[in-house]
Amino acid sequence: METNFVNLYLAERTREIRSSAIRDILKITVSDSEFLSFAGGLPNPSLLPTDLLDMATEFAIRSMRDVAFQYGESEGYKSLREIVREQFVSERGIDDRSICITSGSQQGLDILGKLLMDQKTNVLLENPVYLGALQAFSPYRPNLISLTMEVDGPNLDALGKILSEKKVHCFYANPSYQNPSTCTWSVAKRKEVASLLDKHEVILIEDEAYLFLDFTGTLYPSIASFRKKRDLSFVLGSFSKILSPGFRLGWVSVPKPYQNIFIATKQGNDLNSNQFSQIVLYHLLLHMDIQKHVQKVQSFYAHQKDYLVGLLKQYLPEVRFQNPLGGMFLWVEFPHVSETEMMRKIMEKKVVMVPGNEFRLEPSEVAFFRMNFSFLKETEMEDGVRRIQDVYRDIIT
Amino acid sequence: METNFVNLYLAERTREIRSSAIRDILKITVSDSEFLSFAGGLPNPSLLPTDLLDMATEFAIRSMRDVAFQYGESEGYKSLREIVREQFVSERGIDDRSICITSGSQQGLDILGKLLMDQKTNVLLENPVYLGALQAFSPYRPNLISLTMEVDGPNLDALGKILSEKKVHCFYANPSYQNPSTCTWSVAKRKEVASLLDKHEVILIEDEAYLFLDFTGTLYPSIASFRKKRDLSFVLGSFSKILSPGFRLGWVSVPKPYQNIFIATKQGNDLNSNQFSQIVLYHLLLHMDIQKHVQKVQSFYAHQKDYLVGLLKQYLPEVRFQNPLGGMFLWVEFPHVSETEMMRKIMEKKVVMVPGNEFRLEPSEVAFFRMNFSFLKETEMEDGVRRIQDVYRDIIT
Repeated sequence: METNFVNLYLAERTREIRSSAIRDILKITVSDSEFLSFAGGLPNPSLLPTDLLDMATEFAIRSMRDVAFQYGESEGYKSLREIVREQFVSERGIDDRSICITSGSQQGLDILGKLLMDQKTNVLLENPVYLGALQAFSPYRPNLISLTMEVDGPNLDALGKILSEKKVHCFYANPSYQNPSTCTWSVAKRKEVASLLDKHEVILIEDEAYLFLDFTGTLYPSIASFRKKRDLSFVLGSFSKILSPGFRLGWVSVPKPYQNIFIATKQGNDLNSNQFSQIVLYHLLLHMDIQKHVQKVQSFYAHQKDYLVGLLKQYLPEVRFQNPLGGMFLWVEFPHVSETEMMRKIMEKKVVMVPGNEFRLEPSEVAFFRMNFSFLKETEMEDGVRRIQDVYRDIIT
Repeated sequence: METNFVNLYLAERTREIRSSAIRDILKITVSDSEFLSFAGGLPNPSLLPTDLLDMATEFAIRSMRDVAFQYGESEGYKSLREIVREQFVSERGIDDRSICITSGSQQGLDILGKLLMDQKTNVLLENPVYLGALQAFSPYRPNLISLTMEVDGPNLDALGKILSEKKVHCFYANPSYQNPSTCTWSVAKRKEVASLLDKHEVILIEDEAYLFLDFTGTLYPSIASFRKKRDLSFVLGSFSKILSPGFRLGWVSVPKPYQNIFIATKQGNDLNSNQFSQIVLYHLLLHMDIQKHVQKVQSFYAHQKDYLVGLLKQYLPEVRFQNPLGGMFLWVEFPHVSETEMMRKIMEKKVVMVPGNEFRLEPSEVAFFRMNFSFLKETEMEDGVRRIQDVYRDIIT
């Protein structure tokens, strides 16, 4: 049977489904330990509190087995939802909103795409944009529109113009330490955007996966908290960056009117999120000092970031980037090279970064790479930057 | 803001999204411990090997933390995929098929709906049909068609007629101890259906969630194993019934030509399934005698089934059902009542079953209820059946 018969059987939407170079790269680097990877968005598992984790799993297995090893509520384990609301949700007037646990915030994006996006629905995105959002939304075939960004948030003139000219249905934004650009919206811009979205009655999908990763402990208010039309915002959070992606758990703060349809959609997706993980995570959160843990993560990542910044200044003074306020990445412009050539040649040297065009609707001619600093050790970062330096010098001279 | 503004913002597909009465009932029974529930499809967690589970989680935390608490491959943890292939997959010539781990087989159904179903695509279903499949497929808006079933599989005349008259794109079937009807396809019918599907070039979505729950240990061959057009079958399996739904893990055996698009779709859904659970489950499978465990589950469920059958014969001789060969349910016809009235009145007595019309595209006038026997203790089952008897007698006299 021919392989191209496949297209006869696939739904039209599959034409829009895009694979992630990041995940393909992850596979290579996992299978070949000589690779140094600045590619993944991998939190550092060494920060996890082992003894507490032991205790929490032991408790789940011994004392909570009837709950932990059973089906659970589609919206998530109740106690976990409550602790998420108390510890992690910063919107105003949250009482009538529902906290729904999802299988990573990626699932939250998929559910919101399914709920809100018809074919040709206008969906506004930051440029560059988080690749996972493109993967989640694209199968629903919306009309994706790019917004020009500045270091402190959207270009407001551009935003106002788009919203006046087109009926934009929703705006997906990642306002804190954006992946990949590292831009962080100022409080002033959060307020102004909230007001513009209210005026044009646009749904906001606010992805705050990195919210707690500010290097100095600043916690930005959500854009949703400034909106008057409070039922038009969904806010997503994640445990992947502050605790571990291994739990595969995130949450969505869902406005009351959308609660039932959100939960019914979640049911169709996977019935409920991993119950064992939810119980373990709940007991972990109950017994650990999460504030202190987050501070530890913040200062560890701040140190890692400073180290990578130092290396780039030392070995690659030609490259340009803004010094981020938080998160796990640098967004680095490499002048006078092409992403494709650079990528091919660094892979030969067994070092990887993510090419910038992975995060764009329209390819840019200027070469950008996303560099992660949360995972590699200092010596590995130095070795990696030196390998990149060799390649870059070789290309531009 | 008015609640009905919500419809302005929802995608058209959400009109088709249906909530599950089962999950609503589950919520009630969890919050009120006086309820006796024949409603859920809840495996009995007492069968899980606690010590081995302790060992496996300890190992995941202490020795595998860099893998267990990290992102993983979208198709699943490699060693787990290999052990699934060795221990659980029975199709012939499996070598060129990919085993993809999913977040429960429910996610497998959602991914296949996304991959294969456009609006108006003809999708054939058994009548009655597994509710979760309706929830997974409906948002993609296919044209769902019901097939008349017999105790040993589809009515072949009806199947032949439908396939000749309409271009059926795929057939979703649950051939072993079907949920809810308990019908189990004979080997002869599996072969005949395979041949009909080959002739009409129909994709088969074969859901074998209950495959290992035969009361006498019989293991039926998959329909896919009899097909000549081997690339037109997807086979789904689940750990929820033989081990625990708490892991929220299942698998799909994917034909090679669909492997990349399946994995890319899975990425968009949740990046990867819970990595911690995958590692724990792999180590559990590596160290436990899974054959012996499955036999224990089978004989426990066989005993539970016999007990419920005995109770119905004793207390409710009017009801009709076939004695199932495996699985977790009885599919019980209650003559001369309406499902709605019966349901309302048994809820007042704090006992629940699932009304049959939950599993149908077109409501049936004959009242059926799905009764689970895997979860309640014998005394609870007796108490529950007596409460149902009271209600039923009260209605029909």
